[in-house]
Formats: sequence, structure tokens, C-alpha cells
Amino acid sequence: MSVTTATGFRAAGVVAGLKRSGKPDLALVVNDGPLDVAAGVFTTNRVVAAPVVWSRQAIADGAARAVVLNSGSANACTGAAGYADTVATAEKVASLLGCRAQDVLVCSTGVIGEPIAMPALLAGTEVAASELAATTQAAHWAALAIMTTDTVPKEDALTVSGSQGSWSVGGMIKGVGMLAPGMATVLGVLTTDAVVTPEVAAGVLASAAGRTVNRINSDGCMSTNDSVLLLASGASGVSPDPGELQEAVTEVLGRLGRRLVADAEGATHDIAVTVTGAVSEAAALAAARTVSSSNLLKCAVAGQDPNWGRVLAQLGTVPEEVCPFDPGQVDVAMNGVTIFAHGALGSDRSEVDMSPRETRIDISLNAGDATATVWTNDLTHGYVTINADYTT
Amino acid sequence: MSVTTATGFRAAGVVAGLKRSGKPDLALVVNDGPLDVAAGVFTTNRVVAAPVVWSRQAIADGAARAVVLNSGSANACTGAAGYADTVATAEKVASLLGCRAQDVLVCSTGVIGEPIAMPALLAGTEVAASELAATTQAAHWAALAIMTTDTVPKEDALTVSGSQGSWSVGGMIKGVGMLAPGMATVLGVLTTDAVVTPEVAAGVLASAAGRTVNRINSDGCMSTNDSVLLLASGASGVSPDPGELQEAVTEVLGRLGRRLVADAEGATHDIAVTVTGAVSEAAALAAARTVSSSNLLKCAVAGQDPNWGRVLAQLGTVPEEVCPFDPGQVDVAMNGVTIFAHGALGSDRSEVDMSPRETRIDISLNAGDATATVWTNDLTHGYVTINADYTT
Repeated sequence: MSVTTATGFRAAGVVAGLKRSGKPDLALVVNDGPLDVAAGVFTTNRVVAAPVVWSRQAIADGAARAVVLNSGSANACTGAAGYADTVATAEKVASLLGCRAQDVLVCSTGVIGEPIAMPALLAGTEVAASELAATTQAAHWAALAIMTTDTVPKEDALTVSGSQGSWSVGGMIKGVGMLAPGMATVLGVLTTDAVVTPEVAAGVLASAAGRTVNRINSDGCMSTNDSVLLLASGASGVSPDPGELQEAVTEVLGRLGRRLVADAEGATHDIAVTVTGAVSEAAALAAARTVSSSNLLKCAVAGQDPNWGRVLAQLGTVPEEVCPFDPGQVDVAMNGVTIFAHGALGSDRSEVDMSPRETRIDISLNAGDATATVWTNDLTHGYVTINADYTT
Repeated sequence: MSVTTATGFRAAGVVAGLKRSGKPDLALVVNDGPLDVAAGVFTTNRVVAAPVVWSRQAIADGAARAVVLNSGSANACTGAAGYADTVATAEKVASLLGCRAQDVLVCSTGVIGEPIAMPALLAGTEVAASELAATTQAAHWAALAIMTTDTVPKEDALTVSGSQGSWSVGGMIKGVGMLAPGMATVLGVLTTDAVVTPEVAAGVLASAAGRTVNRINSDGCMSTNDSVLLLASGASGVSPDPGELQEAVTEVLGRLGRRLVADAEGATHDIAVTVTGAVSEAAALAAARTVSSSNLLKCAVAGQDPNWGRVLAQLGTVPEEVCPFDPGQVDVAMNGVTIFAHGALGSDRSEVDMSPRETRIDISLNAGDATATVWTNDLTHGYVTINADYTT
């Protein structure tokens, strides 16, 4: 259940020696066709890593044959030398696969600002190319090789059976910190054996990302390297309706995104902030994003304290022009108990059970009909330990 | 060296019984004139506590005789009953002092969403009124009574000697969490015995707050109760030039703000993020505010890791239209060592000494001549403990 669930794809994950831990750190995903359709969504950060600069232009024609991904080094803020390293990586993989460098996408994740260990990386691509396989195990090694502080690999897939036959969407993703909204978030590769045009692939991926990984806000920090790619081989021979494809890609990317939250650095609670009754989806999303970014609220959830005052204090910072509402009409429920109702005290806070891992914060603005949910997680000692004690 | 350093003022701080700890929790500051000039800056949060609603309208005429402040309960999100409690508090203090309720400002800080214990509060105002004194000790008790998770009271004063005679500015402030920019931040009372008009007082306070407490970003969370007030008695008989008054008020509020950072919840490092070479002060400020809000960077500083990659990753999220710059032209120095120079690696990170409490992060955009500094602090286990384990 991963990138090789869709037919026409092979994968590999190997130890190139970029991670000091000696764990797998280089992955390769190859599309054997017949199609070579590709789409990507990338970070909106103005400081972008060399691989993002490369992959953005390489994917502009809607075609790619392979993705090479490394962990251990982000190759960000490395200047012209870093960009040359990315180009050399694409050229090396192209020569191994017998395709053009322009058809090789590159993704990197790890420490910012350190030059990538190119001899190790290039040697690793040779091993990876020799180990490419269409098996579940090969895909699993690839998912392992893109992990940084992730504690578990994250893979998923979905097979759709229709009148024309069956087709699949598979994928892998990584990311546990530096997860913030407004961009593609994290490194992810989705594959499908559906027959699809580059235009449809691009539209489907952008829409799916907007409703899934772009609605996760772990720590409010946006990465320089975020990339989510969709490759289509057409190997199933099935041309699904774009709506069906949209549904399947959104489902798989949504499940992968949910696992990012569940594995977020140090988290002990996954928090769904749902805003209902907003004047528009954009307004609901803005309010949910704002509430999900409160360190104070996230600490309270870590302490299993249903501190709805921190929900309201944060909600009040959303600009009126972005999300109109009357504070006196707002309801707030935590894990199903409405503890603030129409601008005044509701049920007693002692009725709220904060022990479940999944925490629901529901805010009714009573200003309209639109809804949005943003996932975040609590802020714990574990997050501080991971981010204070190690350079990542 | 506090609110009674300026002549014409008396203060008191007492135990009303609002804090479970039994510590002082009610303060009173009275302006005995001859002038009763007052100005205020308040939170820009849309969810505001009852005392802010009251004090905003009470100060609209530029006059006030007294400020009553309580800790232990914020009286926020308490609906119509909470507002009635604030009005009753102002009326009680007015009857004790023999002035109009409209001339009594009210400030509250503490837990959001709990009704304030009015019998205790009202009884406390009687004790406070009976203990009013123009002494340093009385002012110190007032500064103690407004503390919440502050570990030290925060007071300051400055006396200016000119050709007309000498005059003073004094003040006290509280606040250690929920410190974010774009508003007045925290509870603070400044006093002066200078002769000043309400218009000059309002302008001076707004400008001083904009350059001091509004440039502190401890945890990105904006309070519902923030209020900083300036009272002028005119008792010195000296009418300073507005520029001199501006300088003195900015100096005192700046020093008080610096102490807020130094006492921020759990902090082990005070961090000055300075952006130079911006196209405008607003652009520099936006960039400095953004960098100062990175949890990842703040954790890195806690771990004494000069992780400039996190500075750049956060800087890249500032919208181009807000702060234009070329990432390839940026320099970043930490504690004086330029570890990133013109878009590429600079000095080795091992040269940076991160052990001092005061940490300097200097970002040169090389895009213009404007500069701004925002103060923040590191994100530590102590912050998580304070905000996860206690309801505040």
C-alpha cells in the first residue's frame, strides 16, 4: 500500500551515508509509463532550497520519469554550489535510467545550510537504481529513506474498481515539524496508474493539497523544501472521470496528512479545530488557522486543560475584514461539551474529558453557513526537546 | 522608583482574596492633581474583557482620577454580568474617592472566563483606599498586586531636571506570557507630574507603546485585557517640551518592556531580532516580527544552537509586497558572527557563543536603509510546564 500499488512504478530506498545515524537516506521512484505525466505543488516560502528551484522548472512541462529524494541534508541556503549539486544529481539519475535530466525531479530534506555530501549521494543513486522494484517492500524502503525526525514511515494507497477496470492511487509522505499551512507542506510522492492529462493532474493535485496537507498547522513554521508530487503512468489503461480521480487523490493525501499530525514532533494530542457558521470557507479557514497556531492553547491541551479562554483570545485576533463575526454570538465546544455559549459561560469545564488523543475544538461563529477544519497538535516538552537539543 | 515617583500620585496594593495563593491581588493608583489628564492604549483583540470596554469609553474624554487593577481574574468572556461587575467596581472606587465613576479606569488580569469574586473585590477596594500613600513602598505593593505568573514586580522611573525645574515619569507593568505585538500588551500604569494636555498625553503614549511594548513578541499570543495607561497630575508645575516628554515616557516604557522579556515564562534567553537594510521601517518591523515568532528558532536558542537556517526559513515567509528583498543578498549574524553572508555560507557556526542570556540575531536585507528590532525569548520546557500544568 504505497507508491508501487499503482502499476507502472518501481521504487527503492537505500543507505547512501548522508544521515549520521546510518539509516536509509536515499529514495528513488521511477515511472515506467506508458505515460510520464507529472504535477507538483511546492512551498510558498521565498527562501527555497535548490531542489525546489530545480523541480519547479523541470515539472513545468507536465512530464517526469523519476523522483530522487534524500534525507539528511536539505540543500537549502547553499547558494550556487548547492544548485549545481542538485543539477548533478538529476543528471546522474538520468544517466542511470536513460532519460533526460529535465525528467528527473529532486527533493531534499534535512539540515538547512550544510553542503550535501555529493560523493555519497551519487554513489547512493547507483545502488538505488540497481535495487528498483515494483514491490511493497521496495516502496517501504523508499518511505523509510525520506524520514527525518518521523518516528514511523507514512504510506497509503487506494484502489478503485470501475466499469473500465481498476486503477489505484498510492503515496508516501514525510514531515513531523516545520508543518505550516499555505503551501504544499512536507515531501510527498503520489503515484497513479490512471490515464490522466498533465492539466487534470495539476488541477487535481492542487485541489487535493489545498484541502489536506495545506490544512495542517503543526508548529506554524514553513519549510524551504516542501514538495508534493503526483506521477501518472497510465499503466491501468483506465481513464477515470476527473471527479473520481480528485476524490481518490484527496482521500489518499488526506490520510497521509492525518498521519503527519499523528506523528508530529512530541505531540500527545491531535487537535481538530473546526470553525462552522462562517460567512465563507476562506473566513472559516482563516479563523481555524489562527486558533490552531496558539502556543498557549496547544500547551493547555498538552496539560489536558479545556482552556476555552485561550480559544477565544486567539479567535479575537482574526481581522474583522477577514472573518466577520460577533464575539457575543460565538459558541465553543471542546470534545463535544459546549463550555462557552453565545458569548457567555456554558457547561462546566469539568464535564470535558481531555484524555483522548484526538481532541475536537468546535467553534460556531453563528455568522453564516461555511465550515473548515485545520489539524494541529499539542505543544509538549517533547517538541522542545527535539527542537532544542538537536540541529534539524 | 515607580508610579509614586511622580508627585501628585498615591498608590496601594492589598490582598483582596482573588488569588488562591493569598498574595496581593488588588492595586489602586490615584491622581491627586491638580490635573486629571489620562491616556490609554488597549488590546486590538476583538474579544476584549469587560474592563477594557469600560476603560476605553471612560478615558475617551482624556480625564481620569484613578485606576483600580486586579489580578487573579481577567473578567473576560463573562458577558453582560461581567460588564456589570466592572461598572460596580468603578462606582465603588468612585464613592470611596469622591469622584465620578467615569473617572475610574479598571484593569483586570488572570484566568479568562471565570466570574470575578465581587464581594472580595469590593471589600478589597475599601482596604486599598484606606492604605493609599505616596511612598515607594505603597507603589511597590501595587506592582506586586498586579503580578500573575510574573516572578518579579516591574517598576521604573526617570526624573528630568530642566530650566523650569524637575519632573518625573514613573511606571509599573505586568505580563510574562500572552505577549504579542500589534497592541498595547500587558497591564501597565505610567504616571507623570508634568503639565500636559490630554492630546499630547495620548500622542506620546501611542508613540511610546509603538516603539516599546508593541515590539515585544514573547509567544505570539495576544491578550484580551492589555491596557497601558498614562496619568498626568501636573503637580511639578513644569511644562516640558512634548519631545522631552516623549523621550522620557519612551525610555521608561522601554525599560519596563525589556523587563517583561527578561521575565517571560520559562525563558532562558532574551532575543533581540534586528532587521537592517529594509526598504522601510514597516518592512523591517514585519520581518523582525515574523522571525521572532518561529517556535523552531526559539527552541534552537534554548538549546544554544546557532541555527540560522531557521532564521532564513522564517524570513522567507514574509510576503514580498510587505518586505521586498533578495534572499541571495541577505546576511545573518548571531551574537556578532556572520554565519550567512549574501545568500551563502559565512563563518563557521562553531564560532558563535550562544551561552549569554542576551542573544542578538542581526539580519541585513541589503535592500534599503530602514531598521527595526523586536524582542522575544526562547521556547523552553519551562514555558510548556507553566502553560500546560496550570490554568492561567
